[in-house]
Amino acid sequence: MNRYLTIFAFLMIFRVSLCPAQPAAQAVLEDFKPSVLNQPGQEYPQVNSQGYARFRVVAPNAQSVKVSLGGREGTVLTRAADSSWTGTTAAPLDEGFHYYRLTVDGGTFNDPGALNFYGSIRWESGIEIPAHDQDFYALRDVPHGRVQQVLFASPSTGTQRRAFVYTPPDYDKNRKKRYPVLYLQHGWGEDETAWSNQGRANLIMDNLIAEGRIRPFLIVMTYGMTNEIKFGGLRNFDIKPFQTVLVNELIPYVDSHFRTLSDQPHRAMAGLSMGGMETRMITLANLDVFSHIGLFSGGSISMDDVSGTPGFKEKVKLVFVGFGSRELGNSRPGGRGPFGGDPKENAEALKQAGIPSVFYVSPNTAHEFLTWRRCLREFAPLLFQK
Amino acid sequence: MNRYLTIFAFLMIFRVSLCPAQPAAQAVLEDFKPSVLNQPGQEYPQVNSQGYARFRVVAPNAQSVKVSLGGREGTVLTRAADSSWTGTTAAPLDEGFHYYRLTVDGGTFNDPGALNFYGSIRWESGIEIPAHDQDFYALRDVPHGRVQQVLFASPSTGTQRRAFVYTPPDYDKNRKKRYPVLYLQHGWGEDETAWSNQGRANLIMDNLIAEGRIRPFLIVMTYGMTNEIKFGGLRNFDIKPFQTVLVNELIPYVDSHFRTLSDQPHRAMAGLSMGGMETRMITLANLDVFSHIGLFSGGSISMDDVSGTPGFKEKVKLVFVGFGSRELGNSRPGGRGPFGGDPKENAEALKQAGIPSVFYVSPNTAHEFLTWRRCLREFAPLLFQK
Repeated sequence: MNRYLTIFAFLMIFRVSLCPAQPAAQAVLEDFKPSVLNQPGQEYPQVNSQGYARFRVVAPNAQSVKVSLGGREGTVLTRAADSSWTGTTAAPLDEGFHYYRLTVDGGTFNDPGALNFYGSIRWESGIEIPAHDQDFYALRDVPHGRVQQVLFASPSTGTQRRAFVYTPPDYDKNRKKRYPVLYLQHGWGEDETAWSNQGRANLIMDNLIAEGRIRPFLIVMTYGMTNEIKFGGLRNFDIKPFQTVLVNELIPYVDSHFRTLSDQPHRAMAGLSMGGMETRMITLANLDVFSHIGLFSGGSISMDDVSGTPGFKEKVKLVFVGFGSRELGNSRPGGRGPFGGDPKENAEALKQAGIPSVFYVSPNTAHEFLTWRRCLREFAPLLFQK
Repeated sequence: MNRYLTIFAFLMIFRVSLCPAQPAAQAVLEDFKPSVLNQPGQEYPQVNSQGYARFRVVAPNAQSVKVSLGGREGTVLTRAADSSWTGTTAAPLDEGFHYYRLTVDGGTFNDPGALNFYGSIRWESGIEIPAHDQDFYALRDVPHGRVQQVLFASPSTGTQRRAFVYTPPDYDKNRKKRYPVLYLQHGWGEDETAWSNQGRANLIMDNLIAEGRIRPFLIVMTYGMTNEIKFGGLRNFDIKPFQTVLVNELIPYVDSHFRTLSDQPHRAMAGLSMGGMETRMITLANLDVFSHIGLFSGGSISMDDVSGTPGFKEKVKLVFVGFGSRELGNSRPGGRGPFGGDPKENAEALKQAGIPSVFYVSPNTAHEFLTWRRCLREFAPLLFQK
């Protein structure tokens, strides 16, 4: 298990390197516009219609400025006539959200032009390459649910902990209606802000609900990096501290403070990357608590897991496994993921055994948030359908 | 009015310069600890028991690194043996929250060690000097309310706009109870995140409620920098666009989505700095909407205002005016604020005229958030008392 955690951390930190830059055979179109994730009023970074990113950083007396995006070596900026530093990625970036950082004279800083997002256990710069299907996570003129920050007491850790709870738009219309709940976890180095900020989970839900495609439910997002994982130290990983917070502290808090359907058939858990690993461990050990399981770029469930978990077939209503195509891609013979077993074969085996099992591949995305936004879009309509 | 806005912007950006460094007669105690506002796991910046701040920035090949805190010239860091840059402020900083930024080789960056807070129309680094009275805004083991992000349609601006709504801990206990509402505005260059992040308004409320010192109410916080103000352009300021968003769009949204007491006696408005100016303009023009007025470092209300506003005496239940002592301080003869009139004299005149009027001075703070946290602490118990 430690090996997997190390792989997750590696994937989250070096994800861009794993995604080889595409050949830059095309001429770069000069239709650059500010990234939608820029700080208010900031002109840079910019993105063009082909997915190239262009950076501009003001540091008149610097010796070197580099951006961590744009292939294995990143993008080296060059000094312009006005003493700013500018540069364009050597190739288009994948559609969707990317973390990045600057190296200025050997020091690590964020781009003052971009908004920050918590990833790799630091607040990082973010840039968004508009996806051809971006409408599903866009802020549209539809009824909006709320993202509520709650602070709950955690006796097991001696802390007051934070979670965010998405409530659907009709939550306050009918004050007697109760809702199912999805517990949704971030990846290694991220925190409870990730699914709203990078993932746009609330907007994905608002849009799916407006289209009548899902049964409305709550989403609960909390911090899944327990003390045992800490910052960079992946040894001695133990799921129990987080499992205690989630199952024994947060779930009772949510069920007593929100109008939930608080039984196993109406409770799901999913997570991305490390959060998928946590989901797999916690759900398999708590099948009386959770009925629907989602693993987004975070391993899969095999027939060995099923046979090793009493009651699995009766209790589990859905196993959803999703990956980005560039994670499974051609570089790995047989399309095998890095987490043991072929996730597609595992999903097929479950289906053959009569277990509701769905395998999804996000086209042309890697170990990044567009994969996971799409996973949520595909997963949500399958939840709590009876 | 434009002149005042320019003053607000100036105060928000250059507030540290206006607060002269205290004489550094004392020896610097070596009891530095990481600031409570550091990013997870980060050792720097640090703060000692006297209020000195110490910085450490890694930038091995830089030529110069400066911190914008620590007097008019900031704190120039020097290269240490390990190629990091370190330095300590020349004098203690005032207690409370301070924005700051780095200048690395002439470029403006944030400190990678510190969390970011939106101020001066950019996300800035933040540091906290523990205040002797910090318990009132601490995260304590008491029942916690929630901070809810809402997205509401704004036809007048053609946008979906964001607000945060604080609901008190008992909001979901009795599902028939209705609550008064305070609309609470940030200052120039800040946004709707400021009162929760920098101001800790939710924790101040949780603690006051736990102590039984206030009647619980909702707080609504939204973005008050309208298109007319934009980024740096303070000319042509017109309160109407924001007034329309607040009064015609947000208030109806809140009253239809939350269990509010939706009449004038149960609605207050307050704001800090520019938000105080907005509060003054909007409340005076809408005395059928608001009954309680709070101006935190944002001017005051004079008897001229009263006589120029029909129905003022009958409709206004409270005028609260607060400042930091270092804003009013010795440097200005007669203790006059920079916004016309002596706020204390104005408050006295209102009281003489039989208008409930409170004047508060936060000890040893300037145009910064500890002033405004304390203003909220003093203001909240006075609201909606009958």
